[in-house]
Amino acid sequence: MSFGFKLTGTERGGARTGILTTGHGDVETPAFMPVGTQATVKSLSPDDLRAAGTQIILANTYHLHLRPGEALIKEAGGIHRFMSWPGPILTDSGGYQVFSLADLRKISFDGVSFRSHIDGSSRHLTPESVIDIQLDIGSDIMMVLDHCAEYPCSRETAAEAVARTTQWAERSLAPYGPRVTRDGYERVIFAIVQGSVFEDLRERSARELTSLDFPGYAIGGLSVGESKKDLYGVAAFTAKLLPEDKPRYLMGVGFPEDLVEAVARGIDMFDCVMPTRNARNGTVFTSRGRVILKNSSNRDDFGPLDPDCDCYTCRNYSRAYLRHLFMAGEMLGPRLATVHSIRFYLHLMEEMRQVIKEDLFSQWRKEFYEKYGKSDG
Amino acid sequence: MSFGFKLTGTERGGARTGILTTGHGDVETPAFMPVGTQATVKSLSPDDLRAAGTQIILANTYHLHLRPGEALIKEAGGIHRFMSWPGPILTDSGGYQVFSLADLRKISFDGVSFRSHIDGSSRHLTPESVIDIQLDIGSDIMMVLDHCAEYPCSRETAAEAVARTTQWAERSLAPYGPRVTRDGYERVIFAIVQGSVFEDLRERSARELTSLDFPGYAIGGLSVGESKKDLYGVAAFTAKLLPEDKPRYLMGVGFPEDLVEAVARGIDMFDCVMPTRNARNGTVFTSRGRVILKNSSNRDDFGPLDPDCDCYTCRNYSRAYLRHLFMAGEMLGPRLATVHSIRFYLHLMEEMRQVIKEDLFSQWRKEFYEKYGKSDG
Repeated sequence: MSFGFKLTGTERGGARTGILTTGHGDVETPAFMPVGTQATVKSLSPDDLRAAGTQIILANTYHLHLRPGEALIKEAGGIHRFMSWPGPILTDSGGYQVFSLADLRKISFDGVSFRSHIDGSSRHLTPESVIDIQLDIGSDIMMVLDHCAEYPCSRETAAEAVARTTQWAERSLAPYGPRVTRDGYERVIFAIVQGSVFEDLRERSARELTSLDFPGYAIGGLSVGESKKDLYGVAAFTAKLLPEDKPRYLMGVGFPEDLVEAVARGIDMFDCVMPTRNARNGTVFTSRGRVILKNSSNRDDFGPLDPDCDCYTCRNYSRAYLRHLFMAGEMLGPRLATVHSIRFYLHLMEEMRQVIKEDLFSQWRKEFYEKYGKSDG
Repeated sequence: MSFGFKLTGTERGGARTGILTTGHGDVETPAFMPVGTQATVKSLSPDDLRAAGTQIILANTYHLHLRPGEALIKEAGGIHRFMSWPGPILTDSGGYQVFSLADLRKISFDGVSFRSHIDGSSRHLTPESVIDIQLDIGSDIMMVLDHCAEYPCSRETAAEAVARTTQWAERSLAPYGPRVTRDGYERVIFAIVQGSVFEDLRERSARELTSLDFPGYAIGGLSVGESKKDLYGVAAFTAKLLPEDKPRYLMGVGFPEDLVEAVARGIDMFDCVMPTRNARNGTVFTSRGRVILKNSSNRDDFGPLDPDCDCYTCRNYSRAYLRHLFMAGEMLGPRLATVHSIRFYLHLMEEMRQVIKEDLFSQWRKEFYEKYGKSDG
């Protein structure tokens, strides 16, 4: 089974719908990928994920390489079997984590050396080894090792990151090319455009990477502290530089409103820990804005978290019960909150796909903000 | 809908099967009640509980009185609706928790005064108020406030606890009698036999309480540190003192082998935090004995936790994945382990009900130990 991407609709403003075909199933875009860093979306089972409408999840190469190690996952029959999620999986390359989590990081043109944040062991990753690790893990979409510059950074630093990212992207194709078939499934490699907030560097990065003809392109180096204006501006600018017939993935984004704005600017794929991480801490996203579950206003509120939501949590539990679970430190609280927040994100994407197809996106966007603006957070 | 108990079979050794009828459904006995102290069985949703074969759960009056308070639960429409568990619920009276958890406990013949372990507030519980609290909570089976003496204790201390427990049991009947109908459901009160390991005191306690004609009887004051010999001996001795046509509930017991031995001695109902608490810490019960998930022997074991188990965890995950979740501190680990351990306990009860009906209990018991003895824990 081979990989493919087919555009199914483009709204006049630039928002688009498509179908991503992978060896483990199709993904309708625009799509949000719940984050399962360590081969589990925190607190949720695959059944919960499916019930929430999940099409594809993201797992993390850096974390899985360190624990339990790609050899064990390969021996288990690959990540799909290991974690019992039969659907599509994308793995982040670990570049971002090496730059943000690891100790004693040393970067060279060969790759990155660092100490594991778990046991302090010395590790070295190269563009080539990161692909081999992802092949062992068995993900459907692999990401190149990239150099994500910190924000803010100088033009020179950003330019160096762009040059290194291109070099590494080229090297990641050397062993097998951009499409690798294993166990009857075609896995593909996506490249990552860098360049910080510098338009000419984004342009250079996009030009160099698109010349290598990857099956998909990500926009990296955003959601790292820049303003919303820069986030939306750079995403829009970069999206226009990417081939129309390839999926565009905006990494690490974001808030519900960021998804809406990025979809409006022609983005097809997203991932973010926001819905899961915030939910575990008792803050959930709803059609009326953010809700902090521990707020005393929820103490005797026997209505659902979100009257417009069809998730397991909203169908079965009151805000009062959810608040009780969080006040009592009960594990079911984070889980039920996560179920809702993931469903809210996925439902948002479903709605956007629908209104793009009907060419009603800009009207829907206005209505979304009218409701969502009323936050009680 | 009214409460009832019907014996459906008695094995020659004394083990028995029955059906407990409550306003929220029937319970086949012998039955194990997963513990949902704070109106949630830690880490599990009601759907998980049902899938594991749960018939009835236990919640705790002491904890719910302190947080969120019975008034809120009543306002929510009762505990069944509050926690979204439509099946039968038994509430422990809180006597045991007052004696084991609360600070500055002061006991009198009127009741117990103590400070909340949550916020230090002063509280006072009486046999009458404990029934009112349980009526507000809305459980199907309420327990009397009892005096559970510590172990070991002197004859005098045990005798005083027996006398107080009888007095309090009488007072708990005064306001409404042993059967109270509210919202169309009949709720009932069970008494608790005390007497520590002193047979004559157990006899006195049982005689005094059975003369009050409660709809069911519990055996309290066990599983508090005594030997297995005493646990089984006192349970057997006390069970024989109780009316044959009333359910017999052995509180706070126990290990799988304890359930087998107590069923053999004529016990019908059990509750224990063991399967849930141990599972959260990574120790699970299986048909081959206890398994410590973090043990390195599980590192590359791609087989299921328990080859004889039909639970969600055993059907979908390997020991290697479960170990990974525990090593990585992932919340799904405790949850999947709890699903299994609860299913193991409930399946054990199902098996016992079956073999009692077929009068094959003693043979089955031998086979159980042949398998279960082989523990890798």
